[in-house]
Amino acid sequence: MASSDEAPPAPATAAVVPPRRAFLRRAAAMSGGAAIARYASATDAASATDDAPPAVPDWSRTLGAPILASPYGVPSKHEANVQRRQSPGLTRTPHSSVAFTPLQNLFGIITPSGLHFERHHAGVPDIDPQRHRLLIHGLVRAPRVFTMEDITRYPSVSRIHFIECGANTGMEWGNVAVPTVQYTHGMLACSEWTGVPLATLLDDVGIDRARARFVLAEGADGASLTRTVPIEMALEDVLVVYGQNGEMLRPEQGYPLRLLVPGVQGVSSVKWLRRIKAGDAPFNTREESLHYVDLMPGGVHRQYTWIQEAKSVITAPSGGQVLLDRGYHEITGLAWSGRGRIRRVDVSTDGGRNWRTAKLQDPVLAKALTRFRIDWKWNGEPALLQSRAVDETGYVQPSIRQLRAVRGTRSIYHNNAIQTWRVDATGEVGNVQVV
Amino acid sequence: MASSDEAPPAPATAAVVPPRRAFLRRAAAMSGGAAIARYASATDAASATDDAPPAVPDWSRTLGAPILASPYGVPSKHEANVQRRQSPGLTRTPHSSVAFTPLQNLFGIITPSGLHFERHHAGVPDIDPQRHRLLIHGLVRAPRVFTMEDITRYPSVSRIHFIECGANTGMEWGNVAVPTVQYTHGMLACSEWTGVPLATLLDDVGIDRARARFVLAEGADGASLTRTVPIEMALEDVLVVYGQNGEMLRPEQGYPLRLLVPGVQGVSSVKWLRRIKAGDAPFNTREESLHYVDLMPGGVHRQYTWIQEAKSVITAPSGGQVLLDRGYHEITGLAWSGRGRIRRVDVSTDGGRNWRTAKLQDPVLAKALTRFRIDWKWNGEPALLQSRAVDETGYVQPSIRQLRAVRGTRSIYHNNAIQTWRVDATGEVGNVQVV
Repeated sequence: MASSDEAPPAPATAAVVPPRRAFLRRAAAMSGGAAIARYASATDAASATDDAPPAVPDWSRTLGAPILASPYGVPSKHEANVQRRQSPGLTRTPHSSVAFTPLQNLFGIITPSGLHFERHHAGVPDIDPQRHRLLIHGLVRAPRVFTMEDITRYPSVSRIHFIECGANTGMEWGNVAVPTVQYTHGMLACSEWTGVPLATLLDDVGIDRARARFVLAEGADGASLTRTVPIEMALEDVLVVYGQNGEMLRPEQGYPLRLLVPGVQGVSSVKWLRRIKAGDAPFNTREESLHYVDLMPGGVHRQYTWIQEAKSVITAPSGGQVLLDRGYHEITGLAWSGRGRIRRVDVSTDGGRNWRTAKLQDPVLAKALTRFRIDWKWNGEPALLQSRAVDETGYVQPSIRQLRAVRGTRSIYHNNAIQTWRVDATGEVGNVQVV
Repeated sequence: MASSDEAPPAPATAAVVPPRRAFLRRAAAMSGGAAIARYASATDAASATDDAPPAVPDWSRTLGAPILASPYGVPSKHEANVQRRQSPGLTRTPHSSVAFTPLQNLFGIITPSGLHFERHHAGVPDIDPQRHRLLIHGLVRAPRVFTMEDITRYPSVSRIHFIECGANTGMEWGNVAVPTVQYTHGMLACSEWTGVPLATLLDDVGIDRARARFVLAEGADGASLTRTVPIEMALEDVLVVYGQNGEMLRPEQGYPLRLLVPGVQGVSSVKWLRRIKAGDAPFNTREESLHYVDLMPGGVHRQYTWIQEAKSVITAPSGGQVLLDRGYHEITGLAWSGRGRIRRVDVSTDGGRNWRTAKLQDPVLAKALTRFRIDWKWNGEPALLQSRAVDETGYVQPSIRQLRAVRGTRSIYHNNAIQTWRVDATGEVGNVQVV
């Protein structure tokens, strides 16, 4: 151990451990004594006498990159593996496809905008904000075309909300058991959104409150994607959004303007928003009659099922990660509900026989992701990790068996069942279904 | 007006207006009737008959970019102007310099990591996380060297906190009146940070609670930047941080490990953290004796003034922006306090003679930025815009006159005075001091 106050710690060259996010444990956690011994050893190896300075890494002996090397910053090159990913074979064209958020790599509740999942029906349009327009018409007194200048002139609000695709976890209906949480739950993200309440705009164009029961939202992409939103929702907390995590929307997220329907399946938060029409009946468009419907056991399609019910998932340890030693591990994950706030998350390490209540990270916000954490001491034996969310309405996240009893197995959408991760005696973590 | 339900709004080619963030108003806001007329006109011009489809922008008629065009996403090319900037002439070397956050472009309270201000003393080191080490030693029972694996194995927390450089707004001491809020207040940012409480690590190495009064934090950059932190603070809410806005720290923000001392001038949140030493007295290092001291009117230097007192600033309208028409404008800005939560923000449009209380955006969090907003109807006459924060301790943000009465004019650090923006009759907004 170097004795000088000025002695900086030198890298222990003997230990090569990957970053946590892969969750690999190629070396046991170093105890205090062992670590100091190793540090002293590395120091001694680098110096001929006790007075010589210890080994100092290059980055402490040189100038680093200059200011504004990136006027708009980017992650470290050592994090290149943290990225959105496509599930091979899931879709047949790169313009109508999905890229998943790497939930296993993320901390807290804010999703970096660069890692927000993507879902497109005709690719990402390149829209000039000076030429973009929003038309609001239908059952209104004074139809109007808004420029971006008009929209951003209105009183604004900022709110932290999740967006989850209605098809998130859809492959688990059929027991496909995709390998990682990025693919099971990665059509999920949470951002601080800024925009104008739709109610304000509808009020300004004089919506016919006696007759208007629904609004149609339409995107400016090549798909002209359309969705019906009930008027109660439109007047309650729906936003016309231009800001995402402090800056303008990213292109994949609807730049320069999108709808945000908090708590509702993602497709309703129409991106590249160009048109809102007020009507007296649902609009029955393609994306709400052919797609985004729930096939029930009796063969009936359930339409307009928009709310994303309470759900949770453990993000670490999760599928594809490996525990390389016994002892303390923090179990952490995310919980959310389209009905409001998360009230409680329980965690089981034995497949649902015993449950303990996890800590919820403040702030716990309505229709936002909530980070939960719980301590766990792994004894080296196989384990089945589960989390179960309860929201402020008292609704309890169901098991896959409970969900299938009602919904059958032929659905695509709205699978909010409890997720199970199996930890093998080898420490490998995989996706299993406990039924 | 096109009558078909399928008719999308066409861009009104006659109107070319820049995005809000420049706040230029080259055209008066369109009223409902005028907008529809213009829309109809554009439509008519593009179609020979009433039945022909209206003009539809290219981006609605083609496939956009494919999925994963950016596996790690980036802003729209139309937002290239939104970036960190250096103040010309402020520093003499690009390795010991400052780049400012474009506060005038931002929404909400989260600062995009790519726009978080930079302040370096020897550039940005390129650190391999597998080789990085943190030594904790001094008045501890069992000194220890931690790998990143060790650190990320501990129970973690996530918290939203601001970081403000102690020298933020420093140029205003001398009435320099730099032109924009990016340069007056842009050494300020707010992120969701994830890491381990320093108290946990100090506990694990067995800190000598009877004798340890201070800890020294040291960075692994070429500057080996060091700062003293009092033990009460270290044990209260200081974090050893690896996560920023959901992902690993950005290089400019201390990748892979930094200290976060909430509410305290930024230099104390030592980046690229390599060493913590517990001692019984302040360490009096270069960055706390030669720099980061307050020169008082009597010629005495005030040392170890760390807390960032309550402060606020209007970010829009702000210096360099232009109001191009009278009528409604939303005034918005940010407030923060190193002592805890913001209780209230008052806004004046007449240089402090009359004040109205602004709305605070939820959630209002301790030692975090708080977004405030207030409605304003500009009558076209010159105006003086000010905001004044009050924090939960009852402390009221001072005027520059009040602050100078105590601190004189030769300080660099800890200028938390009320900022004044002058709106001319032309609509141009500039930086002035009202004394």
